[in-house]
Formats: sequence, C-alpha cells, structure tokens
Amino acid sequence: MPKGFSDEERAHIINSLREQGRQLFGTYGLRKTNVEDLTHAVGISKGAFYLFYDSKEALFYDILERFEAEYRERMLGRLGDISQPAHTRLAAALHEAVSMWRSHPLFAHFGQDDMAYLARKIPPERLAANENSDVLFTKRLIAVGRTVGIHITATPEMMTGLLRAIVLLNLQEETIGRALFGDVIRILIEQTTAYLLKEDARD
Amino acid sequence: MPKGFSDEERAHIINSLREQGRQLFGTYGLRKTNVEDLTHAVGISKGAFYLFYDSKEALFYDILERFEAEYRERMLGRLGDISQPAHTRLAAALHEAVSMWRSHPLFAHFGQDDMAYLARKIPPERLAANENSDVLFTKRLIAVGRTVGIHITATPEMMTGLLRAIVLLNLQEETIGRALFGDVIRILIEQTTAYLLKEDARD
Repeated sequence: MPKGFSDEERAHIINSLREQGRQLFGTYGLRKTNVEDLTHAVGISKGAFYLFYDSKEALFYDILERFEAEYRERMLGRLGDISQPAHTRLAAALHEAVSMWRSHPLFAHFGQDDMAYLARKIPPERLAANENSDVLFTKRLIAVGRTVGIHITATPEMMTGLLRAIVLLNLQEETIGRALFGDVIRILIEQTTAYLLKEDARD
Repeated sequence: MPKGFSDEERAHIINSLREQGRQLFGTYGLRKTNVEDLTHAVGISKGAFYLFYDSKEALFYDILERFEAEYRERMLGRLGDISQPAHTRLAAALHEAVSMWRSHPLFAHFGQDDMAYLARKIPPERLAANENSDVLFTKRLIAVGRTVGIHITATPEMMTGLLRAIVLLNLQEETIGRALFGDVIRILIEQTTAYLLKEDARD
C-alpha cells in the first residue's frame, strides 16, 4: 500500500490517471504515450505511478474495462422500451455498442496492431477474466431481454462472438471504405439481430 | 526497358519474383522482407529488381492482385452448380473468398497494420484502380449469378462492402476467439447471403 497517500488521495489520483490517460492515449495513442506524460499531467512522481498500476498498459486496460462496463449498461438500457418491437430494440443495443466504441476518445488512435500489442502486455489471467466477463455479460443481456420480451435463442458464446465481430469492424472502416461503412454495419447488425432472434439459432 | 533481358527472360524473372515473394513475404512478413532477400532468392542484381518493380511493396501488391483475380474466378465457379439452391451456392462463394484468404501463404503474417502500411506505399491511382476493380467484379458476379438463377438484389457497392467486411474478419480471429471464429464467420455468411438475395435489399 502506498505510504503517505490517504484513501481519499488514492481515489483522487486513480481518477486523475484515468482521466488524463483517456486524454493522452486518445491524442497520442497507447505506444506514443509514456508513464512520464501521465505522471506529469497528474502531478505525481513516476515512482508513485507504480503504486497504482504495473504499467501504462495496465492503466489503459483499466480505462478500457471501465468503458466496457459503461457500454454494457448502455446496451441493456436499449432493451427496455417495450413500445418498440424486440428486433428494433436488440438492433439498437448492437448499434449502441458500435457507436460508443467509435466515439470513445480512447480508440481514436487504436488499431489492430495496438490490440495485439496490448494483449502481449496484459497478464494472461487478466485477459482470461475479461474474456469471461464478456460471456457473463451476454448471459445477463439474454436474461434481461427475456424479462422485456426479447427472446434471444443463440447461445451466449455465439452472441459474444458475433458482438465482437461487429464491434471490431470499426477497425476496418478505411479498408471497407468510408462511404460504405455505415451501411455495411447497419446491414450486418440487422442480419445478426435476425439470427439472434430466430427460432432455430442453435442449429 | 531492361537492357540485356529478352522477353522470355523478363517473363521468367517476373514469375520467379512472384514465386519467391509469395514464399518470403509469407514466411517473414512484408516489412521484414527486403529487396536483397528477393533478388538473392531469384538470382538477379538489386538494380535489376527495380527494372521490374518500383518497390517490394509494388511486388507484394502485384502478387495480391493476382491472388484476387484467382479467388474471383473461384468464387464465380461456385455459382454454377444448379443442383444446389441459390442461397447455398452464393454462401459457398463467400466461404470460398474467406477460406482462400485464410489459406494463402501471403497472408500468414499479414495484419491490420500491414494493410495500413501497404496503403501508404502504393500510388493512390493504383489503389483507386483496385478499389474500382472490386466493384466491377461484384457487378460481374451479380450478372453471372443472374444467368444461373441467383438473383442478387443488393447494389454492387453494398455487396462489395459486405464482402470486404467478411473477408477482413480473418484479421480478427484471435480477438474474436479461435474457438468461436469458424461459427461466427459461418453465421455472418449465412445472414449476409440472406440479405443479398432478399426481395427488398435495396431499401
């Protein structure tokens, strides 16, 4: 435990690191931001940084996981408006995931290579826990859906894979073509939603 | 024009460069293969290389475009077996594109960052020509499809975008999860095929 920081100070520093991390990673990218940039922005020593995080990648991952928690809640929030058909609500939840990822500053300079780099820097057990939390979330989404008339028949694992595939297409916007990208995403979401709700999705 | 090479020698050298390029790029990746590796393997001087290609990236792109020509023909070949329903044949063509990309040695070490790197190194007019050839191919596929009872109602541009999205998912296999990847691709191909053939796809 860090000597010399009260609980309040610790909470304040962690919040500041997350906030400055969002800004700096978003502006310069994960690899071009270093620990000094972060500690300078927050006003702590480099030594103090390591009392909170093992590496800049660990801070990045912490911000990423908090973002995931937020977008999961936002997705669930899209399911409940029962004046809309089930298909519309589920598609809206998928659009929410895509557009939150697209508009989050953390990902402004985050590409496929950064994803691979990050995966090498984060302890495997933490990656595995995150992987697992994805499936747990999908299970929760399926359960919540059922309470509001959205009957997802796909397995949680399959839905997790499809959701990842759609969100990851954000990385391909330029190669797919900017002019086409919005429509491609829209159609894939429509068609994926149809699959998730179809009667024999487990086949 | 290269002094001292006959037409036959030129054709032989270009073939060898393509063949060795496939091998070397496939083994070491685009960025870790240099012009000397290529000329050494083929047995020509570095100066001679530049009589044929402006850069190693130009050679890579040439191999890539020849691969595209090949997989386009293979896709068309999947459409003609009229003992199968239209949906099955069109889905098989999409699977052909995905699996040819997956199994081609050129892409064994080719990731998202390489794609962006390549796009910076190839002259914009050549990229634009390739872009255009994608849409021309899709138009041809739609026309060929019509002659064998496959009525694609989507626009060529939209089909091009969807085809790119599906093929590019190959780059995301690890992030989507290896165990899930095959099923995710299968479902997206099924659902995309349904879209391409549905009566109101232009809406």
